[in-house]
Amino acid sequence: MWTDGPLCYGGDYNPEQWPAQVWSEDVALMRQAGVNLVTVGVFAWSRLEPAPGRYTFDWLDQVLDLLHGGGVRVALATPTASPPPWFSLAHPGALPVTADGIRLHHGSRDTYCAATPAYRDAALRITTALADRYAHHPALAGWHVHNEYGTTCHCEHTARAFRRWLTTRHGDLAALNDAWVTSFWSQHYSDWAQISTPRATQYLPNPGHLLDFRRFWSDTLLAAYTEQRDLLRAANPALTITTNYVLGDWVPVDHARWATEVDLVAVDHYPSAVDGGAEEQTALAADLARGWARHAAHRRPGSPPAGGAAAWLLMESAPNQIHTAGRMHTKEPGRMLRHSLAHVARGSHGAMFFQWRAPVGGAERFHSALVPHAGPDSRVFRETVALGAALRQLSEVRGSVEAAVALVVDAASGWALRHPGLPSALPDYHDELAAAHRALWRSGYACDTLTPGDPVDGYRLLVLPALYLIDDDAAEWLRGYVDGGGHLLVTYLSGVADEHARVRLGGYPGALRELLGAYAEEFHPLDAADQVRLDDGGTGRIWAETLRLTGADTVVSYTGGVLDAMPAVTRHRVGAGTAWYVSTRLDDTSYRRLLDTAARAAGVTTVCPDAPEGVEAVRRRDGAASWLFLLNHTDHEQRVPASGVDLLTATPIERAVTLAPGGVAVLREHKG
Amino acid sequence: MWTDGPLCYGGDYNPEQWPAQVWSEDVALMRQAGVNLVTVGVFAWSRLEPAPGRYTFDWLDQVLDLLHGGGVRVALATPTASPPPWFSLAHPGALPVTADGIRLHHGSRDTYCAATPAYRDAALRITTALADRYAHHPALAGWHVHNEYGTTCHCEHTARAFRRWLTTRHGDLAALNDAWVTSFWSQHYSDWAQISTPRATQYLPNPGHLLDFRRFWSDTLLAAYTEQRDLLRAANPALTITTNYVLGDWVPVDHARWATEVDLVAVDHYPSAVDGGAEEQTALAADLARGWARHAAHRRPGSPPAGGAAAWLLMESAPNQIHTAGRMHTKEPGRMLRHSLAHVARGSHGAMFFQWRAPVGGAERFHSALVPHAGPDSRVFRETVALGAALRQLSEVRGSVEAAVALVVDAASGWALRHPGLPSALPDYHDELAAAHRALWRSGYACDTLTPGDPVDGYRLLVLPALYLIDDDAAEWLRGYVDGGGHLLVTYLSGVADEHARVRLGGYPGALRELLGAYAEEFHPLDAADQVRLDDGGTGRIWAETLRLTGADTVVSYTGGVLDAMPAVTRHRVGAGTAWYVSTRLDDTSYRRLLDTAARAAGVTTVCPDAPEGVEAVRRRDGAASWLFLLNHTDHEQRVPASGVDLLTATPIERAVTLAPGGVAVLREHKG
Amino acid sequence: MWTDGPLCYGGDYNPEQWPAQVWSEDVALMRQAGVNLVTVGVFAWSRLEPAPGRYTFDWLDQVLDLLHGGGVRVALATPTASPPPWFSLAHPGALPVTADGIRLHHGSRDTYCAATPAYRDAALRITTALADRYAHHPALAGWHVHNEYGTTCHCEHTARAFRRWLTTRHGDLAALNDAWVTSFWSQHYSDWAQISTPRATQYLPNPGHLLDFRRFWSDTLLAAYTEQRDLLRAANPALTITTNYVLGDWVPVDHARWATEVDLVAVDHYPSAVDGGAEEQTALAADLARGWARHAAHRRPGSPPAGGAAAWLLMESAPNQIHTAGRMHTKEPGRMLRHSLAHVARGSHGAMFFQWRAPVGGAERFHSALVPHAGPDSRVFRETVALGAALRQLSEVRGSVEAAVALVVDAASGWALRHPGLPSALPDYHDELAAAHRALWRSGYACDTLTPGDPVDGYRLLVLPALYLIDDDAAEWLRGYVDGGGHLLVTYLSGVADEHARVRLGGYPGALRELLGAYAEEFHPLDAADQVRLDDGGTGRIWAETLRLTGADTVVSYTGGVLDAMPAVTRHRVGAGTAWYVSTRLDDTSYRRLLDTAARAAGVTTVCPDAPEGVEAVRRRDGAASWLFLLNHTDHEQRVPASGVDLLTATPIERAVTLAPGGVAVLREHKG
Repeated sequence: MWTDGPLCYGGDYNPEQWPAQVWSEDVALMRQAGVNLVTVGVFAWSRLEPAPGRYTFDWLDQVLDLLHGGGVRVALATPTASPPPWFSLAHPGALPVTADGIRLHHGSRDTYCAATPAYRDAALRITTALADRYAHHPALAGWHVHNEYGTTCHCEHTARAFRRWLTTRHGDLAALNDAWVTSFWSQHYSDWAQISTPRATQYLPNPGHLLDFRRFWSDTLLAAYTEQRDLLRAANPALTITTNYVLGDWVPVDHARWATEVDLVAVDHYPSAVDGGAEEQTALAADLARGWARHAAHRRPGSPPAGGAAAWLLMESAPNQIHTAGRMHTKEPGRMLRHSLAHVARGSHGAMFFQWRAPVGGAERFHSALVPHAGPDSRVFRETVALGAALRQLSEVRGSVEAAVALVVDAASGWALRHPGLPSALPDYHDELAAAHRALWRSGYACDTLTPGDPVDGYRLLVLPALYLIDDDAAEWLRGYVDGGGHLLVTYLSGVADEHARVRLGGYPGALRELLGAYAEEFHPLDAADQVRLDDGGTGRIWAETLRLTGADTVVSYTGGVLDAMPAVTRHRVGAGTAWYVSTRLDDTSYRRLLDTAARAAGVTTVCPDAPEGVEAVRRRDGAASWLFLLNHTDHEQRVPASGVDLLTATPIERAVTLAPGGVAVLREHKG
Repeated sequence: MWTDGPLCYGGDYNPEQWPAQVWSEDVALMRQAGVNLVTVGVFAWSRLEPAPGRYTFDWLDQVLDLLHGGGVRVALATPTASPPPWFSLAHPGALPVTADGIRLHHGSRDTYCAATPAYRDAALRITTALADRYAHHPALAGWHVHNEYGTTCHCEHTARAFRRWLTTRHGDLAALNDAWVTSFWSQHYSDWAQISTPRATQYLPNPGHLLDFRRFWSDTLLAAYTEQRDLLRAANPALTITTNYVLGDWVPVDHARWATEVDLVAVDHYPSAVDGGAEEQTALAADLARGWARHAAHRRPGSPPAGGAAAWLLMESAPNQIHTAGRMHTKEPGRMLRHSLAHVARGSHGAMFFQWRAPVGGAERFHSALVPHAGPDSRVFRETVALGAALRQLSEVRGSVEAAVALVVDAASGWALRHPGLPSALPDYHDELAAAHRALWRSGYACDTLTPGDPVDGYRLLVLPALYLIDDDAAEWLRGYVDGGGHLLVTYLSGVADEHARVRLGGYPGALRELLGAYAEEFHPLDAADQVRLDDGGTGRIWAETLRLTGADTVVSYTGGVLDAMPAVTRHRVGAGTAWYVSTRLDDTSYRRLLDTAARAAGVTTVCPDAPEGVEAVRRRDGAASWLFLLNHTDHEQRVPASGVDLLTATPIERAVTLAPGGVAVLREHKG
Repeated sequence: MWTDGPLCYGGDYNPEQWPAQVWSEDVALMRQAGVNLVTVGVFAWSRLEPAPGRYTFDWLDQVLDLLHGGGVRVALATPTASPPPWFSLAHPGALPVTADGIRLHHGSRDTYCAATPAYRDAALRITTALADRYAHHPALAGWHVHNEYGTTCHCEHTARAFRRWLTTRHGDLAALNDAWVTSFWSQHYSDWAQISTPRATQYLPNPGHLLDFRRFWSDTLLAAYTEQRDLLRAANPALTITTNYVLGDWVPVDHARWATEVDLVAVDHYPSAVDGGAEEQTALAADLARGWARHAAHRRPGSPPAGGAAAWLLMESAPNQIHTAGRMHTKEPGRMLRHSLAHVARGSHGAMFFQWRAPVGGAERFHSALVPHAGPDSRVFRETVALGAALRQLSEVRGSVEAAVALVVDAASGWALRHPGLPSALPDYHDELAAAHRALWRSGYACDTLTPGDPVDGYRLLVLPALYLIDDDAAEWLRGYVDGGGHLLVTYLSGVADEHARVRLGGYPGALRELLGAYAEEFHPLDAADQVRLDDGGTGRIWAETLRLTGADTVVSYTGGVLDAMPAVTRHRVGAGTAWYVSTRLDDTSYRRLLDTAARAAGVTTVCPDAPEGVEAVRRRDGAASWLFLLNHTDHEQRVPASGVDLLTATPIERAVTLAPGGVAVLREHKG
């Protein structure tokens, strides 16, 4: 397992973009930078198999030997994310089709439908050829299957596969009709053949139909992964096999479910915010990745890998750019290192990048790289070398993050909240999740993420931001947690619907009404420009509700308007625990204050109470040993009371560590 | 006729969405609320005919019997607005096609093309089956054909039907080429087969082509209606038959023309504005509905129905929500009643809603309902019960609204003003109409709406907002009205074109140049951010013109800019009458002032001169009897000088009535 | 050649839109206005050939005779920009297809694919028929081929033609794969058949693919032009043949390359800005047109035409409107004349308009015309008559504009800068070009435009705004220019890529690094809302760079932020010349100041140093004779020191000319 050795450092290496004479320089520069792992061949299909069944492996032989000679391990990719032009010409029916019925063409990447047999067959053939030749190559650390599974399709192959999947899920049409509430708008299906994918239609689509299509497609992509994995596993059971997740609320993949099928959760992270937002997004992405790894570890038989149950890997990030809307923001000096260590602080077993060397052409010619267009005599490459050194200095770090707070997260709730016909188009699942996470992050709480049903031992506070779909098992899981003394904070739009996105009747949130001791009789979606005032001086946006109490106390009330003096935030003591409900989207300050109150009430403390605002503190612990990561996100020097040894400078710290603007320290803490 | 009995109260009832045990509770709650009419089965096709030619009527038998037993009358729907999945699978060629040529799929509602024979045949078969079984069921008050005719199509069936329609309209190709001015851009048609629907094309389309397609499609939908109507009429001539209009400027239906084919004008009204705009939209929608009913009554042989010549019915509205852009606004307490009575004040014979009970699923699961998700123990259901009581208290109200002012309205002008290639994209027909109506409404004038050619007896002031298309007959009709002493106020963009959207030469508005004693030599479309100043302190937006006077006087002039000191508003005395022309879009205050001036000059008075700002007053009169509706749209108490008996409280009013914030009074006025 | 006679005056004349009785009035009004040239028949195909192979020329015979009788010369159009409906019905496969694969329909204009044999054949047939009949008609001054070549297509005919073109361009697939860098994302082509046009695809497209498609399509349209031209030339070698360019950054035409194939560069110019921007756009368009004409003259064998090497013609403009986003702005009094003379000042041999008479229908019924809807008794027609008189008074004007500054312009760079995947979506080639031109225009410098490789004798300063693609020849051309003492000013994004849009490695701009003595190590694209500050008080937008100097001096530095104190503008003395580099988009004031500094350093002076701000001065010179155009773009009177004879008023000017608000003077200057 990649997490058994030193921290991974490297990224995508695409030698096929360069003449052979560059390869030696590449390996020399990699050694200079301390690169120890590269993903090779992600988009090399047309180079590896220039014509159907004709393989050209000599160049790859040479590259792997060179890398091996240079001490660089290889995650060999299956190149199936980008079939060659000959494939598309031979199999036009395997090109993807949009919801409008428009067939996309070759000319980019990912121009295939993952449900089409011709594609799946071709993908397995090239995978087999690679496995046959390289499964025991000494350079190989493992397999990097495909790349960023995430495209979708509406072709006839997909429709047929969808129907097959539906028969498995629902058993019979009566169950499907019931789950989808096809009694609305005369949509009762009397034959499986009547069901298509949710293609463009006249007006609003059916929510159950949409939701099952997302689930089906996640499973379809997963099947495309697992059949490659099984084949590669059979070729050499000793190798790590995974695929790199692409994050984003548009991705039709249930990452938690997939986590149980990969040997290592590997994520690509590209923040979209430029200022502090990039750091918040980094922390959330890393906490999600660790949560998926932990979720899988609980479900996987056998002992955890040496890197820890929740080890994961940042598989791709951009060395020197933040891809924000409409432009690429160049990272400030030192930010590459700070972002990388923020991931390591949260459990990533290293830092990997896309890509090694900036290409002269292709669609992503301006995507940043460790070796930029300007060459190695550049700030970027000097920071590349410095990051390699820093990661080597952190080689002792192990264990996972300590957290007593967790966010409960569910991909399907995010999908369901994107459906048309909700009372408002403003609520955004990812935004709700980010708001809760940001409030905790700014206060300095360590935070895990859970999938409903995960073990809750050790957590003092669970937060449910807009967990729209709650099935009976999840409701019972939450009830048990609170009964057992847990603290739970639920926000609006949670528990409104069951697993089929059917509204639970009798007052929202139907699934949690009793637990909360309160229910909403009416929603009051707000205009984007509006806010409601609260009696503690705070404000709410996006949403409000007419709450009726059945046991809960009012913590905060609305003030003014039609909801004047009615409860906005409630608290209900149940068994040994407490259940909070928040019926509006609190402003950031109020949200932070409320979560701080709830956390303190639950007995939770922050990681580093003395850290000044703007300094992020994360602790990894392995038994008695612990390491404190301190990241200064401000542009001025900061002093943080702490003691231990700063691994990056190998300096003992007695009372406090001084962080340069944008600087980082990683302290091995004194035991006991 | 539904308008013969008590005020209608109820809405869409969809028992097929619920298990049978809910039906009895439904009827009990309906009785509690005073519901007396429900539309059943609008979207029940797949339940009624689960397979081609196989009918399952037992559940509907049971529902109708239950309703009949509960004293609730039924408007039985033909379910043809949503064909079942089996239909779409069997007839993929009947699925609608967009202007881009994209065929839409099943998965929503209205996924059919109304010009396709397979669809029309299937629609008539289910209609026949329903007529055979239920035409004499005692529960039946009448038929609710289809639902909200309004979708369009560009398939080959449609193209063929379009060509047939064109041969009838134009007779020969020479006439069509002349009407469409196909000499421009080499579009001369030499064979009918060359004409397609206005599909996506390279650049700007032909205005005549677009306009005739809209007319054709309105007629096509109407034919789909009338063939159902004729079949149902034959089954039982005693029943009322209608269909519910969907309002909106996108709707390809000429509602005035349709009015002559329905037994009762029935409209669905969903305002889109939240604040005072909802009340303005309500008043305009109701005045339009009454205008269509009146238009039809003048053209229909025989005596008017007992409910009055211009009786109509609000067939759908939302109990508790205003569907505004991006969110559903929850109505404030009391607003459901106030909106409902605003419709009754303007002639609606009751208030109907979509829908009875909020469903657990389907696309519109969050559409508000009389029985909400929270159940009957809720504000909404309590207001439902209160509204039922109020409507019973108003059972004596009859007659129509008294109005001496009328807006002249024409669907085709609205269509033509949406064509590309106009001097500006800013003018919006519905907005022009609403601005004129709002100015009158705010001043308290009762206002009818007319279709060109309608009788004008009794009207002192006609207002023409942007009546772009004026044919020779309409021009003559207006000339006669003014000659006979009428007052006419015309706004810019009226009369620019003939019935084929061909510009009338010699200065705008070609159709009315002589009547106005002025013409525009040039248009001056304004930027969205700009305005022109006027010498009375007002401003204009959107549009201005270089006017040349040929008999008219200048009332208001432009000041500053290229139009400095040139006329903006003119007045022309013609025969016994007066014709005003307004060459810009006046700000709301100026518009209101100008219309007030014009109305006073015409001898028109407001409904209730003493009503304070924010209190709407509407009078219905039937012979000597009259009822004064007073609606307080403000959030504070209002006192209105009046006398009579407040029917809602059964209280005699001597000098003045006090209206609670948002409150309503309906006074039976003392005769004489 | 049209440029041999008096200044051309007239426009598109479409008699087919009117009954024959209007034609005589048309000719009478043309005589009144001094119209001497009209384009006839641009959109008359369906009138000329109402059915395949059946021609109706009698009406055109009559029109040409009438015009000839009235002394109006005719540019006879081939009507191939708008095939008749019968053509589209017979050849549905010749209708254009979008990148999404949607086939457009008849109903507008330009509904054909220029790569489709059926279309090309039909176009040649009607062209032959016209040539046979009219090539020697005495009215004919020449041929106006087609209209505004500019539409594109993605059909299978196009794809085949694209593949043929690619074989010619690249020779073999290895070269193509290398040029397009198909090693990125597995796009290696192993068979020509695998290449399609750049249809809609899954994600980012290949930049080389896009760029070659634009080049191919420009060549395809050009071939459609040249085959008509050759046929017409053969029919009568004495006639001028051209086609009217449509300008705009979306146009897939390399106008410089086309210039060598037309007898006269003829451009249509429709500014989109309303205020001063219209005048700036006019100046730039005219300078571009003259540049294309000059470019062609240098490449054309034989002597220049009598009108001068760089004579060109404004073929279309709008008499009375500026078509701005969403509305048509009516031109202020006098602006039509000022715009027209601004073109003549820059070398246009006259002023032509679309169209003669405003039509009653068709898509462009509100496009302004010389005879408006209101008829000849109108401001517009009076200004039409006045313009005719003014042009006659300028009949002696000849020669070209004197300019010592030139902008280097290249269509392909504009295309490449529209590709996705650039570091920022903000930079816009046309905007960069316009910003540089505006800075020079406001300071009063005369400015030519050059295509890379054009002769540079006489130019003291070349400006390269965002010349993204620079091949080795162009780089050498610039090096030679500077070595020879020239001054060069290069802005960011110039020279980044080679002719295949491949990034040149080693630091940007790869093509000019040595010449500039500086290179950019990193780009810093800015957010649309951001700016960088400069140490001379100026600001930059859109872009910034980390510059490293290798010989250049810093002229202006960044101040604040990550680039604090680093160079922003540099200067490098090379051989006898100087090369400036500007790494950000300067604010208008700073840009003007910098270009002023660079021009003075190069020894360039303004046209009329005493002209006040807002008065544009342009000098045409022919040997010792010269004419000074003075255009007052302000709304107040201006006094300009000058002497000569004002041709428009036939008044001798001793010391200074007084310009009315918006007024124009054209002085024949005293020789020597």
